[in-house]
Amino acid sequence: MERVKPRTLSGFMELPPARQQQMERMMEILRESYSLYGFTPLDTPIIESAEVLLAKGGGETEKQIYRFLKGDTDLALRFDLTVPLAKYVAANYSNLAFPFKRYQIGKVYRGERSQRGRFREFYQADIDVIGDGSLDIVNEAEIPSIIYRTFTRFGLTNFVIRVNNRKILNGFYDMLGLLARSGEIMRTVDKLDKIGAEKVGLLLHDELDLGQDNVGDIMEFISIKGSNAQVLAALEEYRGRSELFDTGLDELTTVAKYLAAFGVPEDHFQIDLTIARGLDYYTGTVYETTLTDYPEIGSVCSGGRYDDLAGYYTDKKLPGVGISIGLTRLFYVLGEQGLLNDAMVTAPADVLVIPMTQDLTYPIAAATTLRAHGVRTQLYTEPKKVKQKFAYADKLGVPYAVIIGDDEVAAGAVSVKNLQTGEQRSMPPAQAAQTIAAAIAEKKQIPVIRERL
Amino acid sequence: MERVKPRTLSGFMELPPARQQQMERMMEILRESYSLYGFTPLDTPIIESAEVLLAKGGGETEKQIYRFLKGDTDLALRFDLTVPLAKYVAANYSNLAFPFKRYQIGKVYRGERSQRGRFREFYQADIDVIGDGSLDIVNEAEIPSIIYRTFTRFGLTNFVIRVNNRKILNGFYDMLGLLARSGEIMRTVDKLDKIGAEKVGLLLHDELDLGQDNVGDIMEFISIKGSNAQVLAALEEYRGRSELFDTGLDELTTVAKYLAAFGVPEDHFQIDLTIARGLDYYTGTVYETTLTDYPEIGSVCSGGRYDDLAGYYTDKKLPGVGISIGLTRLFYVLGEQGLLNDAMVTAPADVLVIPMTQDLTYPIAAATTLRAHGVRTQLYTEPKKVKQKFAYADKLGVPYAVIIGDDEVAAGAVSVKNLQTGEQRSMPPAQAAQTIAAAIAEKKQIPVIRERL
Repeated sequence: MERVKPRTLSGFMELPPARQQQMERMMEILRESYSLYGFTPLDTPIIESAEVLLAKGGGETEKQIYRFLKGDTDLALRFDLTVPLAKYVAANYSNLAFPFKRYQIGKVYRGERSQRGRFREFYQADIDVIGDGSLDIVNEAEIPSIIYRTFTRFGLTNFVIRVNNRKILNGFYDMLGLLARSGEIMRTVDKLDKIGAEKVGLLLHDELDLGQDNVGDIMEFISIKGSNAQVLAALEEYRGRSELFDTGLDELTTVAKYLAAFGVPEDHFQIDLTIARGLDYYTGTVYETTLTDYPEIGSVCSGGRYDDLAGYYTDKKLPGVGISIGLTRLFYVLGEQGLLNDAMVTAPADVLVIPMTQDLTYPIAAATTLRAHGVRTQLYTEPKKVKQKFAYADKLGVPYAVIIGDDEVAAGAVSVKNLQTGEQRSMPPAQAAQTIAAAIAEKKQIPVIRERL
Repeated sequence: MERVKPRTLSGFMELPPARQQQMERMMEILRESYSLYGFTPLDTPIIESAEVLLAKGGGETEKQIYRFLKGDTDLALRFDLTVPLAKYVAANYSNLAFPFKRYQIGKVYRGERSQRGRFREFYQADIDVIGDGSLDIVNEAEIPSIIYRTFTRFGLTNFVIRVNNRKILNGFYDMLGLLARSGEIMRTVDKLDKIGAEKVGLLLHDELDLGQDNVGDIMEFISIKGSNAQVLAALEEYRGRSELFDTGLDELTTVAKYLAAFGVPEDHFQIDLTIARGLDYYTGTVYETTLTDYPEIGSVCSGGRYDDLAGYYTDKKLPGVGISIGLTRLFYVLGEQGLLNDAMVTAPADVLVIPMTQDLTYPIAAATTLRAHGVRTQLYTEPKKVKQKFAYADKLGVPYAVIIGDDEVAAGAVSVKNLQTGEQRSMPPAQAAQTIAAAIAEKKQIPVIRERL
């Protein structure tokens, strides 16, 4: 038979089983966290009509899109989860209750130039709250709490949710008479982390042709630092000069005020006047999340408030706030940095049942008992040597073996072996199931991410 | 602004939020059931190289495939989960431990002619156990137990797992000297349910040109019915005339023998000599699962034993056994038959927190307490009339409201309202969280499928 070499396309992540277990654990945490905040799961097609998907048109993304004909139909693969959400909300507007809160964890496609750590197929994990005409600021205040819970459950402690408000920025540039130029100024200020304050000042002066006064005011503004209370106090000094600014400051004050009630520790939240998010459609609060020890990774969870979700589909005004986690990239980076925790159980089963008897009725019944207690159980019946059976458990990282020979059957017992310590004890099947279930419940607390000390 | 009509392509399922919750519940049960039996989750790309995906070549499927160029690369969307599994196992052979047990729940694509109930994008939910060179029969005996647990958890009681063994069929035709023609005979016999025994007999005689003796023998054989013990006893009468038959009978006897130990009640399992599964590559046990009250739906979970998973990728002999659930079609049919249970909680949240206070610190803290107890909690802060807030909860089907006014804040309490009974009680937030968590845990037992009486 002529054979084809089995290979996976570059830019497409396909994980080994143990890694996939870690990825699944992260997805489980995401579903659980998002659900706790009242977001409903949504699942939209990966293929859409190209006309619908590209209704917004233009942009860098369009070149990267997977687009093709099937028969006469012009199709495209979704490149994010926001456009499908806009389509869904516009199409189902009259049946939905607003605010409409949805989460979606799904694959999206972008034909990027192939390079290490860049993916053409990748998961995004998004939440959005969509209002009908208006949307209360408390929705924006709640977002940091969702990020905090999610990342904490992943096992991270050293991360900071950085928050700003576009109305404060635009209001400030409004004060300087520079509102029309705020976009290009923000893009320059956004380089602060990379090139430093001095060069940003030079660029503003030389390239954007701003006067020395304006540059000074901007540099002073973006250098406002300190605790959240200190930053808010400094911003109060600007109050009364721009209505837009004042609204933004009220919003940011509200977001900061309710943090503690939402369970977010002050040290995980930082007002940062230098972040703006690139996308033009953000109009209020914006978020970035950075891993303190790995600033080079950039933001791992970003988003913000926008005023018009679906203007290219409907005349309804649909403001919203949302965040997105680039899950595939985050997972890749965590792996590269050695932060994925191999101490968690990544085996396909919690216990391997190894029968040493001719008749398998008793061992199978024991496996059934284990499963009835929620213990993930694999029955190993291949005719191999005992040593090979344990080597199999070892290769998979299965934490427990249940060994059943004629002695055990006669005693109505099973031998439970802890494969990490080597300790072995005989007990009735139901007790074995309870013992292992309890031990596994503890192991489930082991986080998927382990920060290095 | 010029607007595009937001629409979803025909043949692509996109569910309303409440229905999606039911779909998610089914997926959760599938993940849980498959995991309990030691299957590890796998996630492969939706896009593969066309050369790799079509390595097996030919067949009806090829015409339906979504295939396109991106740059110079010839790509295709997966049309099942078996070919990607074959690719994965062949490519990762040396790193995997065998038996390799994987589950995969994922979307596949077939450009079928568009018609009601036919989908171009649909979920399959597969499990397979792959051996390296050989695979013990107990793996085949375990499969009915996985099907039984999964469907029972869905809420179904009236279903039957029908089992046969291709070696018995081929062995029987071997006895008649018809082994070379067993394929066409099985395809004819497969029509039994639709056209009846008499017409099958006529077809075997007229179209397949079999002699009257052979037709009589075949009709007698496939008319063997009764309890599993009775069918096995009847089959014993044929023993000794074909080695293949005897092996098949031994296998089927083993599968039936361990049923009870695997926890499968006898009345959910039926040896049925008329089923064969169309695909040529099944070589041993074959499975179909039918809903007793809805025979017209056909099999909702099918599969079997095969000897060669990945011959077009590797010279390793990789026998396996697997089953597949066509999840999207099953879900669609359940909906059409009115079997999806709207009594389960399909709301995005278990409780809607409705603050009546100016300052939101206390209500937000109460929401945080609810979430800490695992209660899915939505905070409703839109400036609407009280009546509209309850109408929102009602539209979503949220079962509880937690109402917080100044009186509650003063008392350090919250008012918990059961929105189904109207009953309302005041209690401290932590007690409210425990009360609602307990009630919700009970509601989680409500199955996603409800059979009609």
